[in-house]
Amino acid sequence: MAAIAVPLVRRAAEDPTTPMSQPVAILVTGGTFDKEYDELGGRLYFRDTHVGEMLRLGRSRLDVSVETVMMIDSLEMTPEGRALIVARCRGRAERAIVVTHGTDTMVDTARALADAGLGDRTIVLTGAMVPYAFGSSDGLFNLGSALSFAQVLPPGVYIAMNGQHFAWDEVRKNRAHGVFERTS
Amino acid sequence: MAAIAVPLVRRAAEDPTTPMSQPVAILVTGGTFDKEYDELGGRLYFRDTHVGEMLRLGRSRLDVSVETVMMIDSLEMTPEGRALIVARCRGRAERAIVVTHGTDTMVDTARALADAGLGDRTIVLTGAMVPYAFGSSDGLFNLGSALSFAQVLPPGVYIAMNGQHFAWDEVRKNRAHGVFERTS
Amino acid sequence: MAAIAVPLVRRAAEDPTTPMSQPVAILVTGGTFDKEYDELGGRLYFRDTHVGEMLRLGRSRLDVSVETVMMIDSLEMTPEGRALIVARCRGRAERAIVVTHGTDTMVDTARALADAGLGDRTIVLTGAMVPYAFGSSDGLFNLGSALSFAQVLPPGVYIAMNGQHFAWDEVRKNRAHGVFERTS
Amino acid sequence: MAAIAVPLVRRAAEDPTTPMSQPVAILVTGGTFDKEYDELGGRLYFRDTHVGEMLRLGRSRLDVSVETVMMIDSLEMTPEGRALIVARCRGRAERAIVVTHGTDTMVDTARALADAGLGDRTIVLTGAMVPYAFGSSDGLFNLGSALSFAQVLPPGVYIAMNGQHFAWDEVRKNRAHGVFERTS
Repeated sequence: MAAIAVPLVRRAAEDPTTPMSQPVAILVTGGTFDKEYDELGGRLYFRDTHVGEMLRLGRSRLDVSVETVMMIDSLEMTPEGRALIVARCRGRAERAIVVTHGTDTMVDTARALADAGLGDRTIVLTGAMVPYAFGSSDGLFNLGSALSFAQVLPPGVYIAMNGQHFAWDEVRKNRAHGVFERTS
Repeated sequence: MAAIAVPLVRRAAEDPTTPMSQPVAILVTGGTFDKEYDELGGRLYFRDTHVGEMLRLGRSRLDVSVETVMMIDSLEMTPEGRALIVARCRGRAERAIVVTHGTDTMVDTARALADAGLGDRTIVLTGAMVPYAFGSSDGLFNLGSALSFAQVLPPGVYIAMNGQHFAWDEVRKNRAHGVFERTS
Repeated sequence: MAAIAVPLVRRAAEDPTTPMSQPVAILVTGGTFDKEYDELGGRLYFRDTHVGEMLRLGRSRLDVSVETVMMIDSLEMTPEGRALIVARCRGRAERAIVVTHGTDTMVDTARALADAGLGDRTIVLTGAMVPYAFGSSDGLFNLGSALSFAQVLPPGVYIAMNGQHFAWDEVRKNRAHGVFERTS
Repeated sequence: MAAIAVPLVRRAAEDPTTPMSQPVAILVTGGTFDKEYDELGGRLYFRDTHVGEMLRLGRSRLDVSVETVMMIDSLEMTPEGRALIVARCRGRAERAIVVTHGTDTMVDTARALADAGLGDRTIVLTGAMVPYAFGSSDGLFNLGSALSFAQVLPPGVYIAMNGQHFAWDEVRKNRAHGVFERTS
């Protein structure tokens, strides 16, 4: 269950006007972003992604396609998992792609995407420090940020966190402070 | 009172690393964004801006300066009010500026800013359809989006709403649907 | 739209055990409790009651029947409206009844119910200072409180607000402070 | 950090009127109720209790004293822990006592309190299935309910969950459904 409700009136569905923005793909891989609370087991776990609900909450009118690639904690990400994300990015027709990902190994997946040589795509990885299902999450802010960077940055692989964007090879997660920072 | 709490631990304050992003100014003018509920009068009203709280919630590490220019419903915006916003933008040293604004006359203020000729500044207006103090607001999404566009779009005046960005002279608010759309 | 989401899994529906509590009726009349935000008009308004959603959020297993009598601001309550509430209370078979009501004239409706002589029913009026659709509402606390008082207080008409309960003839709303207090 | 903000204006503090309700003690022992999200470790943990914040959110005007006895998951509750809770209840002057407690062993602690023979006190245990710091918690509903039952039930030891109250010796937690039910 989510802390912030889906608007009951989904205006987008009944909206006769045509959004004219470029299409954007969102590939979901899990991460803190999508964790929720299992009230029977008292644990955090994954069920479905909240990205669709977040897009409705943000009144997004982007031409967005959401694809769930996997739902895992990024500490469990494997080379095979990264290969799958690369393959799914390659399979998308959109030039703008946002990948939601756990923060702990987000930089590693960014590198895998950069190494794969994905052409003229702008790929932006983002995530959250607090699950969206908590009312106090940074997820909605980050999603708005990542979608915006994906539309206007030149082709390449980036990380969007903390309102900032970083090229894939100039960033690390500072685990002591829970923030992303430039490595230079 | 706000629906989403300020994180008690403000890591930014104790954070020894230096954010290396360009400075961004946020000029607050009010709008739905910042309305809250007056429990004695049963009305919506303005008190202080929630932008600082939203930046903390978003774990923003941008070099941001927030300036409250006014706190009004944009239906009450006057030519004098617009002149004041223009003057405050001109007075800022930052090249990236986000202006929070009510949606009803946001396009008019965008035009006033464009007409003023503010040089090499990238100015992005944003707002919300639902007050941030409601849990179900689009404000946090829009703020993340506007801050991102402000950092990377070329100089000019833009509106960022619904995950999209528009040049000031190609957008209108569709009041029947509560969304922004291209005029062309 | 509500600030706090309905749990997606409604365990009550699949719950094979039988709640053994006495039946409780909830009569909805509107009030701040049920106001929500109209994002097209920028106003507070009434749509449907949130009581059902609140009961699910509270994991209520009471044998509750919810009846919407009217949806109005209690400043607009008329003698005819009060007569209707009295009639609906009289029409209920349950001995425990909670009436949700705007706080401004809650005491007047309590008096009308007491004057009507409703027999061995325990009737508890409650409301909220902040709409439930705001994340920061007192509504969920008050609903839990009113349902509990209704189950265990002796027959009579009461007001449950601020964690307290008052007999109908010993309470007034202190409008300067937005609280209920004893008149004695 | 909590999902629902503390009202900035604390009217109680400036309130010149005197609440005339009987004093109530709240003994905090932890449980799901008070768990929050550790964004650096990605785990649920305990910090301070949210009870004070919840009382403010509920606009409580009860004469309440909050005492934190321990902050643990109730699966870790020991006989020594229960003895401490018994001792702290015995040490309180209030006749109405609410004990917040994890749901998994709440019934066992209720039995320990009943076995201890605590005289003419009305002791009500309550908890939550979802942490308060999540927006979708049942905690606020349960706290309003438990405080109300504690004021009006005759002396004894009770559990208040799901809007219901149970004598300590007629209730069990149904773990498959996450609800409390009568054993008879």
